[in-house]
Amino acid sequence: MQSFEQLSSQFSTYFNQAHFPAQPESLYRPAEYFLELGGKRVRPVCCLMGNELFDEILPDTWQVATAIELFHNFTLIHDDIMDKAPLRRGLETVHTKYGEPTALLAGDVMLVVAYDYLNKVKSGHFHRIISLFNATAKEVCEGQQLDMDFEKQATVSLDAYLKMIELKTSVLLAASLKLGAVLGGAGEGNLHHIYEFGKNLGIAFQVQDDYLDCFGDPAKFGKQTGGDILSNKKTFLLIRALETATGKDQQELTELLHSNPPDKVQRVLHIYKNCGVDQWAMELKNKFLNQSLQHLDAIAVLSKRKEPLKQLADFLIQRDY
Amino acid sequence: MQSFEQLSSQFSTYFNQAHFPAQPESLYRPAEYFLELGGKRVRPVCCLMGNELFDEILPDTWQVATAIELFHNFTLIHDDIMDKAPLRRGLETVHTKYGEPTALLAGDVMLVVAYDYLNKVKSGHFHRIISLFNATAKEVCEGQQLDMDFEKQATVSLDAYLKMIELKTSVLLAASLKLGAVLGGAGEGNLHHIYEFGKNLGIAFQVQDDYLDCFGDPAKFGKQTGGDILSNKKTFLLIRALETATGKDQQELTELLHSNPPDKVQRVLHIYKNCGVDQWAMELKNKFLNQSLQHLDAIAVLSKRKEPLKQLADFLIQRDY
Repeated sequence: MQSFEQLSSQFSTYFNQAHFPAQPESLYRPAEYFLELGGKRVRPVCCLMGNELFDEILPDTWQVATAIELFHNFTLIHDDIMDKAPLRRGLETVHTKYGEPTALLAGDVMLVVAYDYLNKVKSGHFHRIISLFNATAKEVCEGQQLDMDFEKQATVSLDAYLKMIELKTSVLLAASLKLGAVLGGAGEGNLHHIYEFGKNLGIAFQVQDDYLDCFGDPAKFGKQTGGDILSNKKTFLLIRALETATGKDQQELTELLHSNPPDKVQRVLHIYKNCGVDQWAMELKNKFLNQSLQHLDAIAVLSKRKEPLKQLADFLIQRDY
Repeated sequence: MQSFEQLSSQFSTYFNQAHFPAQPESLYRPAEYFLELGGKRVRPVCCLMGNELFDEILPDTWQVATAIELFHNFTLIHDDIMDKAPLRRGLETVHTKYGEPTALLAGDVMLVVAYDYLNKVKSGHFHRIISLFNATAKEVCEGQQLDMDFEKQATVSLDAYLKMIELKTSVLLAASLKLGAVLGGAGEGNLHHIYEFGKNLGIAFQVQDDYLDCFGDPAKFGKQTGGDILSNKKTFLLIRALETATGKDQQELTELLHSNPPDKVQRVLHIYKNCGVDQWAMELKNKFLNQSLQHLDAIAVLSKRKEPLKQLADFLIQRDY
């Protein structure tokens, strides 16, 4: 058994290679550029860990893990176009650097290359792997569309927002773990639990992300807080506040969503605290984290094999904020 | 053996079904909308014909044909975004009707669904099918990128343009035929010849398309001629004229590329005729058509089995213009 850090380091080394031909450079250089921006490679490591929970890591699993990371980067390149994001990880996005048409095409070809890696899988579970990969890919697209739809709506219910987050971010984490577990020969019950472990962990992570953007320590969080508030982004916190604020708070929050006073962040945070949204978010995060860990407990393998997945939960969800 | 028309009609009926879930409608309705715009479905019919050249059409082949048509439509949706095309087949493009972000995402999800159909293939040739499909998909992306690169360049060599056309349009026709032939159990020699038949036919078709945009009868061609000239589009004819025009013609052509006088089309056509570009294009088309038919001749099956492919060549390349 290897730790999350060990697998993460191994995967980064493995993944750090050319994934595209050299020519035409005008198409493939932008694709390689984006991969070189790096990232935590959490999803492919989940795939490796999902395999190792049940068996030694197979060569097939490295192929699937690579496909997952390429798929994830394909979605980021296209999301950046849709969101008109100028920067990612502090560097120019592909469309900023190379133009939208090339960024679109570089994303497309990255998705095709992801399927090249999947096509190297020799396991008898091949069709099942593609089937789960595709179902997840469609869900991620659905999540992105719902996210864009919600940004145009005045109100969004908490249930609808939760479903969107599940599709946009959690299912890929869940499927990465499950794909590894399928290759590792896990049975149906265990496959269910590892998927639910990942799905609930992903939602807890997103709740935390929304929370930290408001209440995090910028030194620990790595970026300035309040960005979501300034952009009126629909988050767990805003949706909850819109559902629960009353009287003066409700009126002020609605006004703040249609204006940009210099003290907007402070005033919204004040309303959030009045409504107890901060405490609520911590509890919501813990609820999903606990559900996640219950599914981990329910997986029928020796406890010590689960240690890396516990580390993953600790890595993603900081309990001390 | 079935004729091109019979297979085309059968495929259109088969393909005319919902390929996406109903929800979320904001993502899947735009995807279905584009498929409803129709089209000649030439590529999937090529796949069926490639199979039937060697054996009865297998259930697998309908799946691959569907995947090919979905892939082709995915490229059209994304190309329309890149080219900022307002209309296709006289109706609004997806991004015009639903916005660029949704069009981008509808294309993405269409590519994923193409792989869903591929994943239904039960043939032992499965990995080979995916491998050829992917190699072709990458080439189509490369062709589109080169096309965009060329539009920004002052001059493009005929060889480079030919390679771009091969990638952007011919290889998908060639691969469609070959995918069907692989499923039909064809040997390597026959696979080579059917691919080259399709590739050369595709190039002949594009030369004809460029020719007809200048010299076609609008009543037969289905659209007004001169569009390529007005948009300074790089075509076989323009590239040849730039390579061969001399003296006054050369100077006038260069000037016309940087201006838009009301008689631009007439004047460019006059130069084309002075340089013999019209005659040259007819000969180039015939050269590729003949190469194509030679490869068809070389396929080692009974001549009568090749009739539908001869019909296809007749359908795509009109000899009476």
